[in-house]
Amino acid sequence: MEKQNISSASFFIGKQGEGIISFGSGQPDLPPPKEVYSIYEKAPKIFRYGLIQGEENLRQALSKEHMGAHFDQFVITNGGSEALDLVFRVIAGQMKGGKVLLPRPYYYSYLPIIQFAGLKPVFTELVDGKIDIDDVRQKIKGCVAFLLNSPSNPTGRAQAPEIIQEIELLTKEAGAYLVADEVYKDLVYDGTHYSPKGNHVITIDSFSKTFALCGLRVGFIYTANKKIIESVVEMKVHTSMNTNLLAQEMALGALRAPKSFIDNQREIWRGRRDVIYQGLKDLGFDLWKPEGAFYVFPKVKDPEKIVSDLFYDHKVIVYNGSWFGAPDRIRLSYALDTDKIQEGLRRIETYLKSEPGILS
Amino acid sequence: MEKQNISSASFFIGKQGEGIISFGSGQPDLPPPKEVYSIYEKAPKIFRYGLIQGEENLRQALSKEHMGAHFDQFVITNGGSEALDLVFRVIAGQMKGGKVLLPRPYYYSYLPIIQFAGLKPVFTELVDGKIDIDDVRQKIKGCVAFLLNSPSNPTGRAQAPEIIQEIELLTKEAGAYLVADEVYKDLVYDGTHYSPKGNHVITIDSFSKTFALCGLRVGFIYTANKKIIESVVEMKVHTSMNTNLLAQEMALGALRAPKSFIDNQREIWRGRRDVIYQGLKDLGFDLWKPEGAFYVFPKVKDPEKIVSDLFYDHKVIVYNGSWFGAPDRIRLSYALDTDKIQEGLRRIETYLKSEPGILS
Repeated sequence: MEKQNISSASFFIGKQGEGIISFGSGQPDLPPPKEVYSIYEKAPKIFRYGLIQGEENLRQALSKEHMGAHFDQFVITNGGSEALDLVFRVIAGQMKGGKVLLPRPYYYSYLPIIQFAGLKPVFTELVDGKIDIDDVRQKIKGCVAFLLNSPSNPTGRAQAPEIIQEIELLTKEAGAYLVADEVYKDLVYDGTHYSPKGNHVITIDSFSKTFALCGLRVGFIYTANKKIIESVVEMKVHTSMNTNLLAQEMALGALRAPKSFIDNQREIWRGRRDVIYQGLKDLGFDLWKPEGAFYVFPKVKDPEKIVSDLFYDHKVIVYNGSWFGAPDRIRLSYALDTDKIQEGLRRIETYLKSEPGILS
Repeated sequence: MEKQNISSASFFIGKQGEGIISFGSGQPDLPPPKEVYSIYEKAPKIFRYGLIQGEENLRQALSKEHMGAHFDQFVITNGGSEALDLVFRVIAGQMKGGKVLLPRPYYYSYLPIIQFAGLKPVFTELVDGKIDIDDVRQKIKGCVAFLLNSPSNPTGRAQAPEIIQEIELLTKEAGAYLVADEVYKDLVYDGTHYSPKGNHVITIDSFSKTFALCGLRVGFIYTANKKIIESVVEMKVHTSMNTNLLAQEMALGALRAPKSFIDNQREIWRGRRDVIYQGLKDLGFDLWKPEGAFYVFPKVKDPEKIVSDLFYDHKVIVYNGSWFGAPDRIRLSYALDTDKIQEGLRRIETYLKSEPGILS
């Protein structure tokens, strides 16, 4: 074995076998109580600390899904949320107080994550849900990162491949990272999705949406930037250690599903999209037809009142557009079966009749 | 239902049943691919988003283990690591750049966690592994928190109940939080452990050590301080969402184990402690007899050389005391069966013979 400088305990994490006796890691070798197994009868391997970067078999499987990727370019995280949080904390470590440019409306966790890290969000306003590339060109200068989410939560809009390519180029020229949150990339109904590439691109992805595994909390970071990978792992050693090993095993199972699984899901989403889009249009809402993800984002006059009335008086949950930076809209997720969507639409219709003029 | 102000999406997370139709949360309702289940044949409930604060049945079970506790005083986290990380980030949100007093030597993640949060670690030097209460009394003034870890990783020392009570009082008087990392509280060999109490006390605990569930990543925060609970939950919504639900179910299983499970574990640890303590003493090491946890922390002249030599030339992993703020020690975990401990001791003996004078 070639002798390397051993500068921290991280060096030893996951080192085992080959006759090694480890007085290193502070984890019990004893088995957990059998009551833990009552729901799962497998060997206790999953109860040991795993590699902070994620299990190698899962990263190998992911690398096969990403052309030209190597398994060392992935970090498995507690969902896309932790992936984003780690990435922005690492970026903040490189440039404290740096500006992050992102389109508005935005996913509601973006602002807190950027701000918790000590970075400063600045905005490019979406025009009809689409990125205004001239505005990006002007504002990207001096920013440490651009945060792209296409297809978008909450707008349901997808950006054209050539626009994403342009952003890939503009961020590169500006010396900024392009953080591409691609958790909805498999849910594009029309057209194609382009995944940006390059040493400055940091992709965030997740098993939650594509494979319907939200509660499992498995996401990942994918980047060719070795320094980012190293910094993320070095941070995760301290902030959460490995991602749950059983969850990683299940995620690996998901990757073994045939491609038809994703195609079938997409067709179900497409059918629901058509129902909710047409239904809301028929009720008089002004909204975009979703191109991806599973959200509609209609315009309304007073989202706060509508959210409250619908919840308390009609038991319908919709989200206030203000939480996404759009104080003139509400967001409806259509992750519901068609019967429920239709029942929800009927309740909304009843509400609208009781409040004439609430839409405009 | 009494109408409350609905100020963010967090309000709706976990709201279901009772005839509610939710266009809120962005999680697919479709089942995941069957390949995910190949290792676990249960209903897909665990794949849905759960309460950010943690499943109520697990928090109920925990509250029964803590006298006078209410289940709302717990947050379930991705291990003790995330618990610490969230707590210090929340404290930093209250007082940016505040000083955190902690005993040295310390667990190696403490410094990065405190620093990542934007806080400043300051130290009280342990005397023979014990807290110097007069030094704490002087230094606690102006600090935002004290970080206590008893029994301690890496020292294996436990602080006397009256010392912990004194720290409970001193921190209260100073208006500082007492963050009590109690992940080893069930591994005290002699004497009793005192768990500090009060509105200023934030307890960190984990299933990893007591129940040998490190890789499962389930820990928790316990505090009577409602504001801390709320702030932690509000942060975790964005930074990682709920903790893996299957892991929480397994943790609940662990709590159903009879108390004899923990007692039996402790006796196994005690036996191993005696073997490694006596073995290292016989080899000429200067070390404390561990009172808790499962670490010995002997003095050496050149830990860097010993760590490197033992690993590369004898396949024995020990940790450099410098990583814990003790540049004159090495740490050995005895989370190994006795045969392996003895084999490790033999290899160390061989090494010591090849390097006379390495110890002093």
